[in-house]
Amino acid sequence: MADFKHFVIVKFKEGVAVEDLTKGMEKLVSEIDAVKSFEWGQDIESLDMLRQGFTHAFLMTFGNKEDFVAFQSHPNHVEFSATFSAAIEKIVVLDFSSTLVKKAPA
Amino acid sequence: MADFKHFVIVKFKEGVAVEDLTKGMEKLVSEIDAVKSFEWGQDIESLDMLRQGFTHAFLMTFGNKEDFVAFQSHPNHVEFSATFSAAIEKIVVLDFSSTLVKKAPA
Repeated sequence: MADFKHFVIVKFKEGVAVEDLTKGMEKLVSEIDAVKSFEWGQDIESLDMLRQGFTHAFLMTFGNKEDFVAFQSHPNHVEFSATFSAAIEKIVVLDFSSTLVKKAPA
Repeated sequence: MADFKHFVIVKFKEGVAVEDLTKGMEKLVSEIDAVKSFEWGQDIESLDMLRQGFTHAFLMTFGNKEDFVAFQSHPNHVEFSATFSAAIEKIVVLDFSSTLVKKAPA
């Protein structure tokens, strides 16, 4: 079955302690088993024209949509979301079943 | 070493044959060894307010930045990019070294 992805890109407000938020997110996913994998990064490479002000990407993988729904409604996620939402200037979220075309060798 | 990610989200123009483009991208990554893994999806789940009109996400992983640069300058990529660019209404691209916090069991 295809993995379910929760993909978030954001621009944080000026003055926000971004490291506190990324640490908080790392703690959050470590607490919730429904999250199968999680990785994130800060853009340093793309062209300004293509980046459009967004600075960070967060990619979570779930085994299926039900696990994602469980994550969304988990009290720890609800609490963290309030903190996170207050820190962002803009955001795009895409949630989708992933089509894996090429897989990295293990 | 951390993987290098090339994340693209787009909204296609109306009337575009999206399947031709996703097939073209699948062909492209299959031709270029520098691409370590590739997956994509069409958003069907997130809230309109959070999706902001973007419909598709394309996630490519490279072993390092050099492999990504090689991909970017590959003639097949240059050719495909021209076709792809003509089909999109808006795009955000983020390129970054990834921090893997939680890894899916093999």
